[in-house]
Amino acid sequence: MQKKLSQYLGCADWIGGYGRQALTSDLIAAAIVTIMLIPQSLAYALLAGLPPQVGLYASMLPLVGYAIFGSSRTLSVGPVAVISLMTAIAIARVTETGAIGVTEAAIALAAISGIMLLTMGLLGLGFLANFLSHPVISGFISASGLLIAASQLKHIFGISASGHNLFEILTEFFSQLGTTNLPTLILGGLVLAFLFWCRKGLKPLLIKTGLSSDKAAVWARTGPVWAVIVSTAAVALFGLEQMGVKTLGDVPAGLPNLALPSFELDLWKTLATSALLISVVGFVESISVAQTLAAKRRQSINPNQELLGLGAANLSSAFSGGFPVTGGFSRSVVNFDAGAITPAAGIYTAIGIAMATMFLTPWIKMLPIATLAATIIVAVLSLIDLGALTRTFSFSKTDFIAMFATILLTLISGVELGILVGVGLSLSLFLYRTSKPHTAVVGRVPGTEHFRNVNRHKVITSDRLLSIRVDASLYFANARFLESCLLSKVALNPEIKNLVLMCTAVNDIDASALESLEAINQRLDEAGVKFHLSEVKGPVMDKLQRTEFLETLTGEVFLTQYQAVKALAPETLNNGIDDKHNNGENQ
Amino acid sequence: MQKKLSQYLGCADWIGGYGRQALTSDLIAAAIVTIMLIPQSLAYALLAGLPPQVGLYASMLPLVGYAIFGSSRTLSVGPVAVISLMTAIAIARVTETGAIGVTEAAIALAAISGIMLLTMGLLGLGFLANFLSHPVISGFISASGLLIAASQLKHIFGISASGHNLFEILTEFFSQLGTTNLPTLILGGLVLAFLFWCRKGLKPLLIKTGLSSDKAAVWARTGPVWAVIVSTAAVALFGLEQMGVKTLGDVPAGLPNLALPSFELDLWKTLATSALLISVVGFVESISVAQTLAAKRRQSINPNQELLGLGAANLSSAFSGGFPVTGGFSRSVVNFDAGAITPAAGIYTAIGIAMATMFLTPWIKMLPIATLAATIIVAVLSLIDLGALTRTFSFSKTDFIAMFATILLTLISGVELGILVGVGLSLSLFLYRTSKPHTAVVGRVPGTEHFRNVNRHKVITSDRLLSIRVDASLYFANARFLESCLLSKVALNPEIKNLVLMCTAVNDIDASALESLEAINQRLDEAGVKFHLSEVKGPVMDKLQRTEFLETLTGEVFLTQYQAVKALAPETLNNGIDDKHNNGENQ
Repeated sequence: MQKKLSQYLGCADWIGGYGRQALTSDLIAAAIVTIMLIPQSLAYALLAGLPPQVGLYASMLPLVGYAIFGSSRTLSVGPVAVISLMTAIAIARVTETGAIGVTEAAIALAAISGIMLLTMGLLGLGFLANFLSHPVISGFISASGLLIAASQLKHIFGISASGHNLFEILTEFFSQLGTTNLPTLILGGLVLAFLFWCRKGLKPLLIKTGLSSDKAAVWARTGPVWAVIVSTAAVALFGLEQMGVKTLGDVPAGLPNLALPSFELDLWKTLATSALLISVVGFVESISVAQTLAAKRRQSINPNQELLGLGAANLSSAFSGGFPVTGGFSRSVVNFDAGAITPAAGIYTAIGIAMATMFLTPWIKMLPIATLAATIIVAVLSLIDLGALTRTFSFSKTDFIAMFATILLTLISGVELGILVGVGLSLSLFLYRTSKPHTAVVGRVPGTEHFRNVNRHKVITSDRLLSIRVDASLYFANARFLESCLLSKVALNPEIKNLVLMCTAVNDIDASALESLEAINQRLDEAGVKFHLSEVKGPVMDKLQRTEFLETLTGEVFLTQYQAVKALAPETLNNGIDDKHNNGENQ
Repeated sequence: MQKKLSQYLGCADWIGGYGRQALTSDLIAAAIVTIMLIPQSLAYALLAGLPPQVGLYASMLPLVGYAIFGSSRTLSVGPVAVISLMTAIAIARVTETGAIGVTEAAIALAAISGIMLLTMGLLGLGFLANFLSHPVISGFISASGLLIAASQLKHIFGISASGHNLFEILTEFFSQLGTTNLPTLILGGLVLAFLFWCRKGLKPLLIKTGLSSDKAAVWARTGPVWAVIVSTAAVALFGLEQMGVKTLGDVPAGLPNLALPSFELDLWKTLATSALLISVVGFVESISVAQTLAAKRRQSINPNQELLGLGAANLSSAFSGGFPVTGGFSRSVVNFDAGAITPAAGIYTAIGIAMATMFLTPWIKMLPIATLAATIIVAVLSLIDLGALTRTFSFSKTDFIAMFATILLTLISGVELGILVGVGLSLSLFLYRTSKPHTAVVGRVPGTEHFRNVNRHKVITSDRLLSIRVDASLYFANARFLESCLLSKVALNPEIKNLVLMCTAVNDIDASALESLEAINQRLDEAGVKFHLSEVKGPVMDKLQRTEFLETLTGEVFLTQYQAVKALAPETLNNGIDDKHNNGENQ
């Protein structure tokens, strides 16, 4: 029982040996992450179209849930940019009619996503993330980053605008530009400039003052907190609110109420697709971060355990009034660099956020929205990697097509269609390629028992014997291709009396391919050509022996291609060297 | 221009050399097919839930359209059982509200299907049919046959019942069994018995009377016509209509009016999915028949030309008041066996049906519905091949799963969901298998330069060198699998200093797999293990050279695995035999 329980609890791995040193390291890391997380959680709630406190709520219990079930030692779970954008789009759709509030919808979304992640974890479906190719993910994140940055520009300019795709967002933005609020723009511009300087200039400055490179990097990340403090103070001191600078306003103090999410079936049905996309994208993003960090300390990440951890985090979020969360890149790196040793750091961070929620809320009433928008813009610009487009283009055209389509559709049709089409396209392109496998007519390399492509090597062939190597397993999508390939090659060479299919690369044959082999055998027979196989692998041979194919086969199954040539075209072997190699043919 | 036009006209291949002998053969075949097609076209219209004349209309112009554009010499196009069932289901959905008539909906369906087929043909998408695996198609056709047979039972018993899945159909049938009309049952039973006897007993009898086997087979297929004649006469003579036997009733005489189909956008949108499924299933069914027959006479079938032919046939059907058509198996075999040489036979058949429509309609007024139902039942029972389930089970479990799911879902949820899930499942199972490719630790076969799986062969290995062969191209879905496979094997063997990835079966590497190779290289480096590649194929090497991977690679790229072992573990080569083989290493 003990063992069975611990299988599902990631914390079982570390909680036994937890000591004073780990406690100290985790506390320091937690303090820094808390400072970083306060503005981030407010900003991402804003991005998701939710009240600011929802961001704080999503940064407490979810961290505890992940600490208990997750397998990464240093992943920092909470609100992240891309998932917040996807949440905004999902809840905008269900709250259009006004029948349900945004917070209720966000909570339901977190609950569905949590249940999906837990179910996938219990069923061992972590491998599903492998079907999202890197170029599609990378393109999706870049495009989402662009969308997010564009959507926040209005807050920097102090104007009202909306839109779900880049075109709408920019059109609305430019049409409203005349209503720009100058004090907001000056404040927002200053914060933006300060944050960019933090990214580039603060770290070298801190190093000069004597900090180590690691510590300088960590402290440079706390820039947004200073921006929040200074800009809030500026609003209070100069009465900027009266000049049109928008602020957070009243944020309720105190911890969230624990409550069951809404279980309306209709709402759940409408949110299901969005929840699935949020779950999968969040999982893929999170596990990449977790694996990158784990590799640095030779720790390992279990994908299915990660699903349980993220599922627990999202369910915790739903029960405590939060919205969908996942492991974020920049925060996890800070947590790692600041010295976090165990997920207990996450629990301490949660306590830090809880204290902030209880005591700091009166102070953030005058926090300008423009400051939060600026922190979002600076954070997401680092996600955008359009250079990956050119790198991918030079390496693989099909990957480029999938990536480009993902970026384009995400920008013009929105995130959900973008990721769906990207995944669908990358799978389709893969299937298309495997449906036309590489085949080669082969001949014998003089003086050896090796057989190589006649187009690339100087080899010995026979007019009466055609040997074809197919470089793929045979399955339904390429079975017909093989049929027409073999039959057309025979049709071109009327002298051929024997055809050998060299099966070195055939790891499997499915029922459709078996029918194609039977058809090939029959049609070659009608054309007076015998059909042989060579180098058939053991498991494939076992399968064929359970059918009638081998009985109807007009030719033979040769253990090696060399034996096939020896039996069918011995005249091509008449040089002295070959006899020496006879010892090799039974391998 | 001439050449360009003929590219799209299948008839360009044969029309030039058309002579008296072909004319005679085609006319004889057309006469027999016409006799067979009259009851079939009426019966399949009934099955599709359409007035009987629609079946006749679908058997005229479509045959001409196919004759001009199609590439098969002997395919007989027209209404077929499975497509009629799919039509029935598609039009039932749009005509539920009563806003549109069944005939109008069927015509629109044929028009959309025709446009889809033509578009696919012009875009060269014939290869898409390859993605429907044989077990899925075979399961789908068997299950559809069962559904159709079950749906016709009510006509044999003279009762009213409905239902879209096997469960509904049988429940309704048994609940209405008390209202059986005895004269209908006697008539239907006799016709059924006669038609079964025609299948089994008539051919031997005809052979005994001196007919050749081929001719006997052809004439045995005309059984339904005699059943129609005799049962219609019985109705007229014995006044069976007054006893409750249902008949066709008035069928309008004369040719169909040529008219444009309905172009309502909403209707087209609703029918689009059904039309796509009908197009794809019809195309796959048709091309299998065409290829089987073409192979017997050494003719070839061009899938894209077939798409054009079927597209033209369906558009012709739509413009002349018909419903979706495709190439049917039994009729094409009769056409072939009866000696048809060119598609002109189809044009003569169309003329035969046109004459029947003009002059025979008064005579079929009293044709009993039970007779048509019996011809449908006997025709579809030959489609059902449940033995394929056990054959597939013994050969391939994944194929069996896809086939079983297709049959089950088609029976319980209807044809559209059945085929969609079948195709989705077979593709998913394939992707799942390729996401976990076969890998093998390899060692050298003593006395040779061959490297084989250590688990299957007695081979020489080294403690400090690990050689792993991966039997698949590397792409996003298996990239992470490769990562964990390689890293876990190294983790198990701390003595290892060098790892060689033997790429004999790697035909391609995509961008995701490249990132995985980079990650493997980096993590092995951190573990003090050098990463090497061997036997990298030319095109893959070209691709890698366009990246920075080869510069960061800690090890080398060896031309052959033997060279790798010679460089990294020369101590395993210290026996005399190896030196003799040095000449082979540069191949």
